[in-house]
Amino acid sequence: MENFDYYNPTRIVFGKDRLDELDTLVPEETRLMILYGGGSVKKFGTLDRVRQALKGRQIHEFGGIEPNPRFSTLMKAVDLVRREGVDFLLAVGGGSVMDGTKFVALAAGFCGKETDLLSGRFKPVPVKTALPVGTVVTLPATGSEMNNRAVISHGDAKIPIFSPLAFPRFSILDPTLTYTLPPAQVANGIIDTFIHTVEQYVTYPSEARFQDRTAEGILKTLVEIGSRTLDHPEDYDARANLIWCATNALNGLIGAGAPQDWTTHTIGHELTAMFGMDHGKTLAVLQPAVWTVRREQKKEKLLQYAARVWHITQGESSERIDLAIEKTRTFFESLGVSTRLSDYGMTKEKIDDVVAALEKHGMTQLSETRDLTPEISRRILETAL
Amino acid sequence: MENFDYYNPTRIVFGKDRLDELDTLVPEETRLMILYGGGSVKKFGTLDRVRQALKGRQIHEFGGIEPNPRFSTLMKAVDLVRREGVDFLLAVGGGSVMDGTKFVALAAGFCGKETDLLSGRFKPVPVKTALPVGTVVTLPATGSEMNNRAVISHGDAKIPIFSPLAFPRFSILDPTLTYTLPPAQVANGIIDTFIHTVEQYVTYPSEARFQDRTAEGILKTLVEIGSRTLDHPEDYDARANLIWCATNALNGLIGAGAPQDWTTHTIGHELTAMFGMDHGKTLAVLQPAVWTVRREQKKEKLLQYAARVWHITQGESSERIDLAIEKTRTFFESLGVSTRLSDYGMTKEKIDDVVAALEKHGMTQLSETRDLTPEISRRILETAL
Repeated sequence: MENFDYYNPTRIVFGKDRLDELDTLVPEETRLMILYGGGSVKKFGTLDRVRQALKGRQIHEFGGIEPNPRFSTLMKAVDLVRREGVDFLLAVGGGSVMDGTKFVALAAGFCGKETDLLSGRFKPVPVKTALPVGTVVTLPATGSEMNNRAVISHGDAKIPIFSPLAFPRFSILDPTLTYTLPPAQVANGIIDTFIHTVEQYVTYPSEARFQDRTAEGILKTLVEIGSRTLDHPEDYDARANLIWCATNALNGLIGAGAPQDWTTHTIGHELTAMFGMDHGKTLAVLQPAVWTVRREQKKEKLLQYAARVWHITQGESSERIDLAIEKTRTFFESLGVSTRLSDYGMTKEKIDDVVAALEKHGMTQLSETRDLTPEISRRILETAL
Repeated sequence: MENFDYYNPTRIVFGKDRLDELDTLVPEETRLMILYGGGSVKKFGTLDRVRQALKGRQIHEFGGIEPNPRFSTLMKAVDLVRREGVDFLLAVGGGSVMDGTKFVALAAGFCGKETDLLSGRFKPVPVKTALPVGTVVTLPATGSEMNNRAVISHGDAKIPIFSPLAFPRFSILDPTLTYTLPPAQVANGIIDTFIHTVEQYVTYPSEARFQDRTAEGILKTLVEIGSRTLDHPEDYDARANLIWCATNALNGLIGAGAPQDWTTHTIGHELTAMFGMDHGKTLAVLQPAVWTVRREQKKEKLLQYAARVWHITQGESSERIDLAIEKTRTFFESLGVSTRLSDYGMTKEKIDDVVAALEKHGMTQLSETRDLTPEISRRILETAL
């Protein structure tokens, strides 16, 4: 097992009928701002329920945080925060709203060059303070509710950032708030959770047994409940299990002490930034291709994945790996998500642009072996066509 | 899945050669006290290494915290803390030293009736402040390094307490510090971890899939590494996996949202308090008996445990449960721990006294179904003979 630090101070408030607890979770005497996205939290009443729970308080609001939240949008929220002296932020929404709110919290007290706020990809965002953040989660997927990370869109790039100051103080996870989600968003969430998990698991053996078993537990749970979650939107337990898996897939637990390979997310971010593909769909397309191209260096963990998640124990190693990749692809497709780039209008000619973007953004030394060269990224994209 | 809160702000510093980080983990300008137990942290140099890491600071020390730490001993430490104006406590040792230090931290600023500090069994210890605590863990077992609980001996009772203020600020978990442990203590630690896990898992089905899978992962890991950990004391990865399983078995993760049954620990505490039996040995003796007596109400989860941990899937339900109990007993005995009360000099005549003690301490409405009557406790003890 590798040395590691594990620290996660977010308070999780999980379950039915917990929104009323906002009144005690948000400290009294704060100047509060609620941040949200488009219309769904309005349309389905979540925003009203949040307002009701905080009745009697002075509340500012900032709506319109878009999917893949943009730097320019968020800086408008920062202006409002500064102007009104806001000192507590409450995100009501999914990953984009939570990520955007965390960014606003970090940016609010920062006096330096604004774009330095986006320099937190490999080292923490250079801020010394951050506003406290709480979240009310309406879409289980990104894990943002219990980690110190965010992904912000700027120009033609999706930029991951982190800061030890960015953990939410609390996150309310109420499965019933997800009942009204469109099926495509739920499917994307299942896939995002699945990929977060395998990116911290299908690398090379490292004697991280608890971490491996926990990762396999998340994957098996997703396979068990995937279709049920989609087919029965008001199945409380299916939604509850999806949400708690999504949170634990990216709160640091399964990756602590284990090698990691974020190839799929890295290339996927370029596809979203360049072609507007849904984040979850980029992952469903790329992961089978990553494993196909990297099957030798990941051989032992792919065989472990095949055996423990899919019960594939017979046949030559190579056949078992092929079958595990095929089972994974079939699982994604059973959720209604196509797993070929060509299904999304992508052609061989556009691959050069994606590889060029990866080089431009310095994404050439990633993966568990730090050798994701442009050539390998190209092979992955070609395999994914 | 049941509603739950999950909150755990302890920073884990895991791995080889981390002791030097004490100098940054313990804030400067604190009046520090190191607390420890008997001779082993002195004998094997851990205490010297801790002192070396904190060289140049004014350090008070309090040694002699015994196994099953006594209220009277700890109140002496409280006196010293008050007299010297100590404002940071560093526990160096195993569960007893950590538990004792957490108690001292809670007691230091308390002005009420001293024994009220022991009233935290079912509600938090009635204190409003606590000193910050850090730990250097030398024995993996109790999970105290990452939770807000402690067990304190007072008179003829072992009293569990908790407080939201009792989470350690940080815990250093260095597997190499456990190399010198006597095999019996390591075996007790494996069993303690195993029992903590099943007490949050073998109850009734509750659609807590992530929690179940994670619990099963801990159990399977313990079965895989149990003998290896004992036979090869300096096998780093075996010790690392044991430690990280022990921590995660009792940091709130696997029990959040799941029913729990602490019968084995509850009766075990009485056996330790009355007859001086090692904590781990009481658990190894009692758990098979608890399952035998409660096999009907735990049927579904016992069958799940049989299938997923021991791969027992053939035969009648009753046979599968018998086999799972037998496999568990054999596993404990493979670690050199006897699993019959009679092996420890216990006789049928003494059972009355244990049942009377359970009644005296109000331990009559526990378990996942709140019906651990004196009669059922008696049957468990008789079955364990």
